[in-house]
Amino acid sequence: MTVRLGELAVRFGCRLRGDPQAAVDSVATLGSAQPGSVSFLANARYRRFLSTTRATAVILEPRHAADCPTAALLADNPYATYARVAALLHPLPRAAAGVHSSAVIAPDATIAVSASIGPHVVIESGVTVGERVVIGAASVLQQGACVGADSWLAARVTLCRAVIIGQRAVLHPGCVIGADGFGFAREADGWLKVPQLGTVRIGDDVEVGANTTIDRGAIEDTVIEDDVKLDNQIQIGHNVRIGAHTAIAGCVGISGSTTIGQRCMIGGAVGVVGHLTIADDVVVTGLTMVSRSIAKAGVYSGALPADEARVFRRNAARFRHLDEWYRRGTQGGGEPSDSESEEESDD
Amino acid sequence: MTVRLGELAVRFGCRLRGDPQAAVDSVATLGSAQPGSVSFLANARYRRFLSTTRATAVILEPRHAADCPTAALLADNPYATYARVAALLHPLPRAAAGVHSSAVIAPDATIAVSASIGPHVVIESGVTVGERVVIGAASVLQQGACVGADSWLAARVTLCRAVIIGQRAVLHPGCVIGADGFGFAREADGWLKVPQLGTVRIGDDVEVGANTTIDRGAIEDTVIEDDVKLDNQIQIGHNVRIGAHTAIAGCVGISGSTTIGQRCMIGGAVGVVGHLTIADDVVVTGLTMVSRSIAKAGVYSGALPADEARVFRRNAARFRHLDEWYRRGTQGGGEPSDSESEEESDD
Amino acid sequence: MTVRLGELAVRFGCRLRGDPQAAVDSVATLGSAQPGSVSFLANARYRRFLSTTRATAVILEPRHAADCPTAALLADNPYATYARVAALLHPLPRAAAGVHSSAVIAPDATIAVSASIGPHVVIESGVTVGERVVIGAASVLQQGACVGADSWLAARVTLCRAVIIGQRAVLHPGCVIGADGFGFAREADGWLKVPQLGTVRIGDDVEVGANTTIDRGAIEDTVIEDDVKLDNQIQIGHNVRIGAHTAIAGCVGISGSTTIGQRCMIGGAVGVVGHLTIADDVVVTGLTMVSRSIAKAGVYSGALPADEARVFRRNAARFRHLDEWYRRGTQGGGEPSDSESEEESDD
Repeated sequence: MTVRLGELAVRFGCRLRGDPQAAVDSVATLGSAQPGSVSFLANARYRRFLSTTRATAVILEPRHAADCPTAALLADNPYATYARVAALLHPLPRAAAGVHSSAVIAPDATIAVSASIGPHVVIESGVTVGERVVIGAASVLQQGACVGADSWLAARVTLCRAVIIGQRAVLHPGCVIGADGFGFAREADGWLKVPQLGTVRIGDDVEVGANTTIDRGAIEDTVIEDDVKLDNQIQIGHNVRIGAHTAIAGCVGISGSTTIGQRCMIGGAVGVVGHLTIADDVVVTGLTMVSRSIAKAGVYSGALPADEARVFRRNAARFRHLDEWYRRGTQGGGEPSDSESEEESDD
Repeated sequence: MTVRLGELAVRFGCRLRGDPQAAVDSVATLGSAQPGSVSFLANARYRRFLSTTRATAVILEPRHAADCPTAALLADNPYATYARVAALLHPLPRAAAGVHSSAVIAPDATIAVSASIGPHVVIESGVTVGERVVIGAASVLQQGACVGADSWLAARVTLCRAVIIGQRAVLHPGCVIGADGFGFAREADGWLKVPQLGTVRIGDDVEVGANTTIDRGAIEDTVIEDDVKLDNQIQIGHNVRIGAHTAIAGCVGISGSTTIGQRCMIGGAVGVVGHLTIADDVVVTGLTMVSRSIAKAGVYSGALPADEARVFRRNAARFRHLDEWYRRGTQGGGEPSDSESEEESDD
Repeated sequence: MTVRLGELAVRFGCRLRGDPQAAVDSVATLGSAQPGSVSFLANARYRRFLSTTRATAVILEPRHAADCPTAALLADNPYATYARVAALLHPLPRAAAGVHSSAVIAPDATIAVSASIGPHVVIESGVTVGERVVIGAASVLQQGACVGADSWLAARVTLCRAVIIGQRAVLHPGCVIGADGFGFAREADGWLKVPQLGTVRIGDDVEVGANTTIDRGAIEDTVIEDDVKLDNQIQIGHNVRIGAHTAIAGCVGISGSTTIGQRCMIGGAVGVVGHLTIADDVVVTGLTMVSRSIAKAGVYSGALPADEARVFRRNAARFRHLDEWYRRGTQGGGEPSDSESEEESDD
């Protein structure tokens, strides 16, 4: 699709510096852009590519306009404007409405006429699929699941019984919504399964990454509020609640019955212990273990940075005796204990 | 389903305090219970909800009976009794016996007449499916796989060739049992694949969470003993053995050839290095790295708790020079090195 | 299959010590070998089993020959030689060429006649499948995906639109190649999705583990170079590049736009932050957080080893005040602050 810069400026509310008749038909990074493409500057890290870009136009903040050698679309939030331009220039193919002949649909399921049901999809009894929903190939919607209008299940998505998905949701391949939570009672001779009777309720505008799992509640429901964004391979335990607009990076685990506030940002591979409450606007950096509730907005960390193994191992050996060392130090001692010198050599 | 309290008491061996004719038809948490529901108190954390609960009856330990404003079902293990009551009041729909017309079944597979084979299931040559087994939609059972009586494969489960599943197993969607272990020999010009010739043997009463993966053995088998409970997104490497009654929380990784004892409890996102032996009755708390064998029952930890990022970063910077600091300290020095002040400002 | 030791020696370039007419028909570990099987010694850990092995022959380095009580196949790289012998003695069944009647194939897809397309596979418009490729049951290949000759998709693999897979690739069940990267622009009222317009390009001889996910690029492509080996449940973000011959263990997460060099070895559950560059020949041990670029080959670590919880907790409490302690120490103070004694008792 080809669009003139003038039209982009009008449509997306930018100020244009340059020829409104110049045309673009694709987006590109600053470094690899060619004439005909529009690029953007949103991350200071990439500013060094600006002066030599071959793009026809660059979307950037007004304060960088002076450094831009090409036409400029000036925007307060260049990344958001870029996203809109990219969606306009590169529209995705839309699946045609209708039910593929290989899909297996229960007679009492309710499927909107405008919905698209792909090949080898399974839709069980009592399921509801809203207007313009796309259910990608090989997805399974179990009894009573419900998918709101304009949602997209990419392929191989599993919705277990009674799971509720809001409108405009995006669910990537392999995600599993509503499997049993991990609940067992310990008895003398082993574990007894605790029935998982709640379901999962997902709000509007939620995105769920590939192979992410969200467990159904034990008694009440697991709840994902509106506009929550979940990356790939996240595990969310039963009875968790995640507040609106919170974004969670890949490989995070949230244990059961924990509540995460609104607008939080959780870094990759973070682990959150069960039964905690995390306030609104909390940022947790990657690989951190959150083992207590967080009552105050702010940035929290807990992972040591990588070091040369030789150096790290020595420091870790000292760590194993930190308390001992401290107590000795404040009591006037200070001799290394035998175990410490040993420590260094035995891995 | 409606049941009288007197019947619950008799059936599950509780002492009843209250009207045996009172009826209940559902379970609920203490906080949200309504008349007609039965609740329970198993975690001290929720005791504050007891005095105001609207439940018709509460399952609890005799020592809490005095604080209970409603009828009480007194049980030594209230959580286990709750689990039994919940299963009675909220029975799951049972899949009907028979093979769905869209399933693809090899002519030489052995399928019990009482088994239920869902839509789009694939069952390859030599597979055996036992009595009353339920194979959920879109599951794939490769050559020679074997599923014991009363097991439930929820949906989209993969059993690779020759995998053996015991009786009463529960396998959640997306789990993959018996993919190749990660085995490669390094040669001058790259990696050479090592054939993975063993399989996976899973005992009775095992539960495997959504998207969990258990690799087949390299030569001998990977073994999961009876009554092991695995949460979602766990990775178990080739030749691992997990002892009976052990429970493992989500996102844990167990590297190849490690043996875990019986009745262990492994917290979320723990990593266990390969070729180790972990004793019976070991508890490992979340996000811990287990890099040496553990010979003694007990509780083990290794993850630092989250802190405000600013504070954590300063402490982490000191950690990077802990050994140096220690050596200086015990030799009478004590001046900060140049690098440390630098350290603090550069993230 | 039965082979004489003399033939093995000739075929795989070993020196044979023993009877060239002796026959073997299987591989086994040193400990469980029976007459008729060939074993190997590649890891010093298992040397104690050598003197009592019942194997007919053992593959080992010349320097261990003197300790070997059986016939010996002397090889410089016993593990690689073992891999070749195992593949010879235990050939895998090969799927027959042809398209299963239940597969759904777009009319304009190009499928080599020698390829095998399993039951319930979905192949969308514009897909290309090369010679001798095996597409296992229930896999989904979306628009324009391309699979090179001799590749094996085990089962339930998802290739999203336009994904390119090289020759001789092995993709295990549940892996998802080419789902959208995690890209959202923050606006005042929530998140705006950023179109993910690149794809994933995977080289030759790459192996991808079960339930591993590799996201498509935002503008340019995510690239996995030749002979990369990825274990299970790895998450690779958009625009990542992984250099040839690099091997990555299970549960690792690589954040977006990071470049990993050639011949790296990344341990289990490592997390690598986004926008970094990791040099060639870097080794990272398990559970480490890599938060800065690594410019120099070497071994890097960052995870504390497990300790008894009681001891670890005390040391962790001291860690939380390390910087404070250091500053006090170098200024001549040394009294414990109030908070520290508190710290120890409150988990």
